[in-house]
Amino acid sequence: MELSIYLAGQIHDDWRDQLKQKAKQQNLSITFYGPQENHDLSDNIGEQIKGEQPNQIDRDDAASSINNFRTQLMMQQSDAVIALFGESYKQWNTAMDAGIAIGLNKPLILIRPQSLIHPLKELSNQSNVTVETIDQALDVLAYTFK
Amino acid sequence: MELSIYLAGQIHDDWRDQLKQKAKQQNLSITFYGPQENHDLSDNIGEQIKGEQPNQIDRDDAASSINNFRTQLMMQQSDAVIALFGESYKQWNTAMDAGIAIGLNKPLILIRPQSLIHPLKELSNQSNVTVETIDQALDVLAYTFK
Amino acid sequence: MELSIYLAGQIHDDWRDQLKQKAKQQNLSITFYGPQENHDLSDNIGEQIKGEQPNQIDRDDAASSINNFRTQLMMQQSDAVIALFGESYKQWNTAMDAGIAIGLNKPLILIRPQSLIHPLKELSNQSNVTVETIDQALDVLAYTFK
Amino acid sequence: MELSIYLAGQIHDDWRDQLKQKAKQQNLSITFYGPQENHDLSDNIGEQIKGEQPNQIDRDDAASSINNFRTQLMMQQSDAVIALFGESYKQWNTAMDAGIAIGLNKPLILIRPQSLIHPLKELSNQSNVTVETIDQALDVLAYTFK
Amino acid sequence: MELSIYLAGQIHDDWRDQLKQKAKQQNLSITFYGPQENHDLSDNIGEQIKGEQPNQIDRDDAASSINNFRTQLMMQQSDAVIALFGESYKQWNTAMDAGIAIGLNKPLILIRPQSLIHPLKELSNQSNVTVETIDQALDVLAYTFK
Amino acid sequence: MELSIYLAGQIHDDWRDQLKQKAKQQNLSITFYGPQENHDLSDNIGEQIKGEQPNQIDRDDAASSINNFRTQLMMQQSDAVIALFGESYKQWNTAMDAGIAIGLNKPLILIRPQSLIHPLKELSNQSNVTVETIDQALDVLAYTFK
Amino acid sequence: MELSIYLAGQIHDDWRDQLKQKAKQQNLSITFYGPQENHDLSDNIGEQIKGEQPNQIDRDDAASSINNFRTQLMMQQSDAVIALFGESYKQWNTAMDAGIAIGLNKPLILIRPQSLIHPLKELSNQSNVTVETIDQALDVLAYTFK
Amino acid sequence: MELSIYLAGQIHDDWRDQLKQKAKQQNLSITFYGPQENHDLSDNIGEQIKGEQPNQIDRDDAASSINNFRTQLMMQQSDAVIALFGESYKQWNTAMDAGIAIGLNKPLILIRPQSLIHPLKELSNQSNVTVETIDQALDVLAYTFK
Repeated sequence: MELSIYLAGQIHDDWRDQLKQKAKQQNLSITFYGPQENHDLSDNIGEQIKGEQPNQIDRDDAASSINNFRTQLMMQQSDAVIALFGESYKQWNTAMDAGIAIGLNKPLILIRPQSLIHPLKELSNQSNVTVETIDQALDVLAYTFK
Repeated sequence: MELSIYLAGQIHDDWRDQLKQKAKQQNLSITFYGPQENHDLSDNIGEQIKGEQPNQIDRDDAASSINNFRTQLMMQQSDAVIALFGESYKQWNTAMDAGIAIGLNKPLILIRPQSLIHPLKELSNQSNVTVETIDQALDVLAYTFK
Repeated sequence: MELSIYLAGQIHDDWRDQLKQKAKQQNLSITFYGPQENHDLSDNIGEQIKGEQPNQIDRDDAASSINNFRTQLMMQQSDAVIALFGESYKQWNTAMDAGIAIGLNKPLILIRPQSLIHPLKELSNQSNVTVETIDQALDVLAYTFK
Repeated sequence: MELSIYLAGQIHDDWRDQLKQKAKQQNLSITFYGPQENHDLSDNIGEQIKGEQPNQIDRDDAASSINNFRTQLMMQQSDAVIALFGESYKQWNTAMDAGIAIGLNKPLILIRPQSLIHPLKELSNQSNVTVETIDQALDVLAYTFK
Repeated sequence: MELSIYLAGQIHDDWRDQLKQKAKQQNLSITFYGPQENHDLSDNIGEQIKGEQPNQIDRDDAASSINNFRTQLMMQQSDAVIALFGESYKQWNTAMDAGIAIGLNKPLILIRPQSLIHPLKELSNQSNVTVETIDQALDVLAYTFK
Repeated sequence: MELSIYLAGQIHDDWRDQLKQKAKQQNLSITFYGPQENHDLSDNIGEQIKGEQPNQIDRDDAASSINNFRTQLMMQQSDAVIALFGESYKQWNTAMDAGIAIGLNKPLILIRPQSLIHPLKELSNQSNVTVETIDQALDVLAYTFK
Repeated sequence: MELSIYLAGQIHDDWRDQLKQKAKQQNLSITFYGPQENHDLSDNIGEQIKGEQPNQIDRDDAASSINNFRTQLMMQQSDAVIALFGESYKQWNTAMDAGIAIGLNKPLILIRPQSLIHPLKELSNQSNVTVETIDQALDVLAYTFK
Repeated sequence: MELSIYLAGQIHDDWRDQLKQKAKQQNLSITFYGPQENHDLSDNIGEQIKGEQPNQIDRDDAASSINNFRTQLMMQQSDAVIALFGESYKQWNTAMDAGIAIGLNKPLILIRPQSLIHPLKELSNQSNVTVETIDQALDVLAYTFK
């Protein structure tokens, strides 16, 4: 079995690299996708491609249209989605991407700390599996290959 | 035309009642659905129906399973979704419900203040219409009947 | 909101009547569907309509084709499914109907006694809500109207 | 033609190995999937990954959530499903998986002994093909390559 | 339950009227649809609406485009399809309409005489129910209301 | 049979009123939908609801987002689409709406003058029925009720 | 581009071999599927696998269930369908398979002689392309690679 | 990630070659599809394959049926669609293809000059990304690989 998995979540640390590293160590045949992790590039891509925009709202919309195009292509190609929540940041894109996965009936793993049990209870209940750490998420993936 | 619309968003003030009131004043044939607005009932419904749970996480899961069942039924019956974001609360259910609407290809109106333009730019770009006030959302609905 | 719900499960007692009665007492706008509860009719309907069959296997297939036609029509018209398991009978049709509901992405409530927690754990995990009694299932339905 | 087939059924003997062996002997290009056949691992996987759970019901739910995630991924990748029933065990997962295949409109082969004709008549009627032995199921697969 | 059913088959006798009559006598809530039964109108409708056509093939295509538009609208509104075959006529539209029902996963009842068992065996096997007479088909419909 | 039909095409004359009038005269049970026919309102609706926009492109996008929301809701509720082309105007919305109907597999009637046969040949070939006048389109609709 | 195409039609001459030969000569990357062309095998496959059946109708149903399983798998894997009609045989399977292709929205090429224009007019109108010879069908396929 | 992209738009200059060239220079793994760019072949393909047609309308319909068959196969295989509009030509096929992409929920990039902002505002709003030049469209594609 070969899997493709979209990694939704914040882009402020290297959690995706950790996950990819561990998957590689276990020789799991998984292609990982995820949002643009270069934050500045992600914010500037609209003006970078379409030129200077007249105001901040147009600048944001130009960037997000290109990010959304990229995400939709990757989500289409993915067999499952992992959504990671932490204690920092608004993480509305993470929740939105998890919702899209639910709407598309794609299997979903939620990673969230114990401190977020209550505010994420509806999302957790709609996920296939809820875990607390990246290692546990990887264990779930590894189990699908056993 | 008769419409059914699901109102995603926080349940801490009466924004849904305001919207319903205004829709009624304009004689729009719209049935509105939304999450359980009695916060205590929403949190307690699991134990209320299934009895005392052994711990907080089971208590939350019991409640959320019933809330999700209710929401899924209402979402199925809805022609469109309105998602309202404000400056308070985590609002992850709002973002998740908006994501589900996107995944299901249901038309989506986003209501959010100017202060949230940047963090909601991807969600705004995937919505059909983005406005800043409840009155503007109602104007959009009213226009579909003209 | 008006709901249509298919009641999957054994046909050897009056659990459906109890559920309908309680729904009526609470004035819930629900149309209930379910399998043919007259067991003899359900087993004989093939020969009754198509005439005597050459052997038992053809007799069974004739009956089941007509029961399946009836069930598929009802399932199509249903917004949600309730599947009830007890300690008696094989109940494979109940499990199959629950599986069909899962495959069709119809919201599913599972009713099962504590004694069946382990053998029904995968089905329970794929249901939206799991409860132990008919009264609890009705409470879940009633809550969707609140 | 290359096929992927999910093998639903009990995990207490080596029927899947027999089937795979025979497919290999005939050089059929088939990838077989199926549930976790290590019964202890299947029951313990929840606690093994997520740590000790407070009670049996949470332990079961943790395990089944991971088993269901694995099954859904495999079912998605499968072109057809074979469901085997025998005279032992409850086999509700088998019936549920067959139901999911029906709901997803995946071609389905049912293997069941003559003694189960009557209780499986509705499931048999909804299957594409019903046979009594593993060898017969393999013959059906082999025929699709001729 | 209210049903809508499309009646595919030849238009050279009054079999549809017989079926409707019997359904009415039993007070079954069924709306029946079917092809244009006025054969001349069905063949001429293209030229009648679009004017004289340059040759027979254009005349036929003009008529069939309008007949197909009509059938597609009716098929969309139907919960199930009944396809009747007799010993006369080519009946390729009947077989095509039955195939469309199968492709759309609409429940299908096949009515055919014993003499056609062999040539219709694949179609019969893909139908939900196969019977030999209009009365038997009506009995199947009546059973879904019991 | 009751039908809902979306009328795609230019909004510079009263062709929709003519069609509705004729349908009424023949007592056809059809609800007609279509784009906002008040051209100024259609162009200004963005600023009218969301306030003055910083430039023409934002003004256009604001208006079109609301028009598209309205059209998507109406298209969802429609059983079929009629697309009318004439010799004036770019009519790209008409072609886009016809394309959406094709993508959604909604039955489509094309009305176009003889002068546009060549440039509309691919669209005509993908439509269910092509006619030249409003009266002919109405005749097709009337025929579906016969 | 690599294509897979299902060849529906009679199995009494070598028309499929002719088509495959010509596709090979033109180096078109096409995998062709089709029904079992060994007529005796096709009729006997039920008894061959499942053992002697009690009567002709069970014998036919056993064979057709296996043929249908095979066809459904191949149709799922096909990007398009070619349906060939000639002046002999009932060809109801051909019409049914064409109908299934229409219901599944698979592109469809119809091959039929001039003598069958009238009885196949509805099927022709629902096909993407109608031609009269195998060579013309191949030309259409070759054109998709140009 | 490997992508397949359909390039809708006029066939009167070499814009597709430019785009393919640039994608190649950047080593993007993209397969590009598009309409038949040999205009004469595209117009004549009907008569070339099916023989001389009695009149212009049949000639056009023969050609367009084959072009549409080709396009539908390519669109099915595409992950996204790019639609380019310029100031010349009617470009109704471009708008229709863009509409089909919207109806099929395929990601869509619109390329159009500033002069067409107003007449393409609804199409732009339904596209994922709108740009003005081929280079910008390529930048968007390149970004999805970063």
